[in-house]
Amino acid sequence: MSIKPIQFKDDTLLMIDQRLLPTEEVWLEYRDYRSIAEAIKTMVVRGAPAIGVAAAYGAAFGAREIEAEDFAAFRPRFEKVCRVLAETRPTAVNLFWALERMTNFALAHQELSLPELRERLMAEAHEIAAEDERINRALGKNGAALIPNPARVLTHCNAGALATAGYGTALGVVRAAVEAGHELMVYADETRPFLQGARLTAWELMKDRIPVTLICDNMAGYLMSRGEIDCVIVGADRIAANGDTANKIGTYTVAVLAREHGIPFYVAAPISTIDLSLPDGSQIPIEERGPREVTHMGGRQLAPDSIGVRNPAFDVTPARLITAIITEHGVVRDNFTAGLKSLVEQG
Amino acid sequence: MSIKPIQFKDDTLLMIDQRLLPTEEVWLEYRDYRSIAEAIKTMVVRGAPAIGVAAAYGAAFGAREIEAEDFAAFRPRFEKVCRVLAETRPTAVNLFWALERMTNFALAHQELSLPELRERLMAEAHEIAAEDERINRALGKNGAALIPNPARVLTHCNAGALATAGYGTALGVVRAAVEAGHELMVYADETRPFLQGARLTAWELMKDRIPVTLICDNMAGYLMSRGEIDCVIVGADRIAANGDTANKIGTYTVAVLAREHGIPFYVAAPISTIDLSLPDGSQIPIEERGPREVTHMGGRQLAPDSIGVRNPAFDVTPARLITAIITEHGVVRDNFTAGLKSLVEQG
Repeated sequence: MSIKPIQFKDDTLLMIDQRLLPTEEVWLEYRDYRSIAEAIKTMVVRGAPAIGVAAAYGAAFGAREIEAEDFAAFRPRFEKVCRVLAETRPTAVNLFWALERMTNFALAHQELSLPELRERLMAEAHEIAAEDERINRALGKNGAALIPNPARVLTHCNAGALATAGYGTALGVVRAAVEAGHELMVYADETRPFLQGARLTAWELMKDRIPVTLICDNMAGYLMSRGEIDCVIVGADRIAANGDTANKIGTYTVAVLAREHGIPFYVAAPISTIDLSLPDGSQIPIEERGPREVTHMGGRQLAPDSIGVRNPAFDVTPARLITAIITEHGVVRDNFTAGLKSLVEQG
Repeated sequence: MSIKPIQFKDDTLLMIDQRLLPTEEVWLEYRDYRSIAEAIKTMVVRGAPAIGVAAAYGAAFGAREIEAEDFAAFRPRFEKVCRVLAETRPTAVNLFWALERMTNFALAHQELSLPELRERLMAEAHEIAAEDERINRALGKNGAALIPNPARVLTHCNAGALATAGYGTALGVVRAAVEAGHELMVYADETRPFLQGARLTAWELMKDRIPVTLICDNMAGYLMSRGEIDCVIVGADRIAANGDTANKIGTYTVAVLAREHGIPFYVAAPISTIDLSLPDGSQIPIEERGPREVTHMGGRQLAPDSIGVRNPAFDVTPARLITAIITEHGVVRDNFTAGLKSLVEQG
C-alpha cells in the first residue's frame, strides 16, 4: 500500500510536507485556495500529477470561498481562483489540465444552484484524485512488461506515489513489476538541488520494502559504463506532440548517457501530461528557481556569498532519445507524433 | 595572486582546511607525518597535485621523526613512513609519484649524514611544491591558446590553486587565459557529494575576481543543449598510457555530454599525473568512499536511515572523448599513446 500524499478528511485537505521528508513526516492542513496555491509554489506538494490533483482541490476550495448570487457573478471569481492556482508553477502541464477540467465542469453545470455546484466541484476533485491512482495502476501494468527480470532500474527525481495521488508513474511501473514478481534494484539519483531522489524516492521505496540504492546524479554514467544499469524509467512534467519530454533537470543528461550505453530509456506519464498544443519541446516553458536552493541546504551555506547561480528546474529530453512512452492507454514506441495523438484521442 | 593551500612556516606545515571552505578559512598546523597522512585521508587537502605535495612534506616530516644511527637503520623506517602515506588514497597517482621521488632521493643521497639527509629531504619537498606551481604556470600558458575569446568554460570539481601548490591545472589554464586578456565566464559544476565546485572552485575564482556561475552537476547538459558552453576543462587524478583519464566522479558524464554537443573537452594535468605503467584506464583503482558523504551534509541528514549507497569518488573518461591533454611540456591531441610517451620522456 503506497502512500497517498494528498488526502481529504473532515472538510480539510491534508498534504504531507515533502520539504521535510525523510526525517520528518508532517501533514499540513489546508482549507482555502490561496494556501493551496502557496503549497504548490513552495513545493510542499510537487510532481506533475500531484500538482494537478492539488490544483483541482484548490479550485474546489476556492469555489466554496466565493460568495455570489448566481453563476454569472460566480464565474469571473472562479476564473480568478484558477488563475491564482495556474500562476504557481509553469512547467507541469497537469496543473493547467486539472484547472481546465474544473473550469469546464463548472461551465457544463451552470444550471445547478451554487451550493450544489460547489459540492459537485469538490466531488470532481475527489474523482480526479481517485482517477489518478487508477491511471497509475493501469500505466504501471503497461510498463511492467518492459522491465527485465531481474533488473537494475535507474530513476531520476521522484515520479512515485508522492508525485501523484498514489502509486506513482515511473515508480508505478516499478511497483507493478515487483507485484508481477520481478526482482528489482532501483538506483535513485539524488536529484539536486531539491533532492527528490534522496529524500522522496528513497523514502517511499524503503517504506514499501522495494530495494533501493542512492547515488549522486553524477554517478549514473559510471554505473552505466560498468554495465550496472539495465534500464532507465522517469516521469514527465509535459510531453509535446512529437514526444519531446520536459522532466526534472538532469533527465536529459540521463537520456544522453542511456543512449551512449545502449540502455532503454522509458518515460511513464498519464495522458494528462501530453500537451498536443505544442508541436515540440522547444516551446515548453522551463521554470528557473531561486539561487538559494543551490547555495544552501537546510539553512547551511554551501557556496560563497553572492555567487552567481543558474537553477533551471527542468530540461527537455528530445523524443529521439526516448525508447518508449508508457501511458494508461498503452505504450508508444517510434513514431511518437502519430502514437501520442491516437492515445490522447482514445481518452 | 592565487591562494597557496600548503605552506611551510617556522618548521610547521600549514594547510587550509578545505572541508570548511567557503564559509570558514581555517589553517591547520602539522608537525608529524601521521597527522599529514590523516589530513590526506580526511580530505583537509585534496586534488591530485596537492596530495603529492602534501605527501612529499609528509615523507620529509617522517624522516625527521626517525631516530636511527645510520642509513641502513633509517631506510626501512623511512619506507614505512612512505607506506603509511601511500595508503591514504588510492586513485591519484601524484601521491605515489611524490613518495617515489622522495624515496629515490634518499637512496641517491645515502652517503650523507642523517641530519643532513633529513634537511635535504625537506628541501626536496619544498622543491616539489615550488616546481608544482611553475609547472602549472607553464601548463596554463600551453592551454590558454586553446580557449576561445570570449568563452563560457565549464569545469568540474576543483582543479584549481586549492588542488595544487598554487595556480591550478584546469583553473591554471583559466587564469592564464584571463591574464592573456580573454573574457571568460566559468561555469562550475557543484560536484557532489563533496561539493568541491560549489565550495572551492567558486571560492578561489571569486577571490581572484574571475567571473563564475555555479550550477548543479545535472544542469551541464541543459546549458550545453542551449549552446551556452564553449569548452570544458578539467583536471586529472591519473592518466593511463593511452590517454584514459581518471578524474572526479561525474567527469565521464560531462565528457559524454560534450561529445554529444560537439564541444571540446580538455584535460589539464602535470606530467606527474601520467602513469605509463597502466596501458589503459580499466586498471586505475577507483576509490569508493563511505555513505555518509552522500546521505549527510554538514551534519544534516538528507536521505532515509540505513539507505544503501554507492559512492565512487572517481570515474574514467576514455581517451576517445578527450579533445586534448594539456601538460607543462605541451599539448597532446589524437594519438595519445605516442604523444604522452614522448612528453614523459622529455621530462
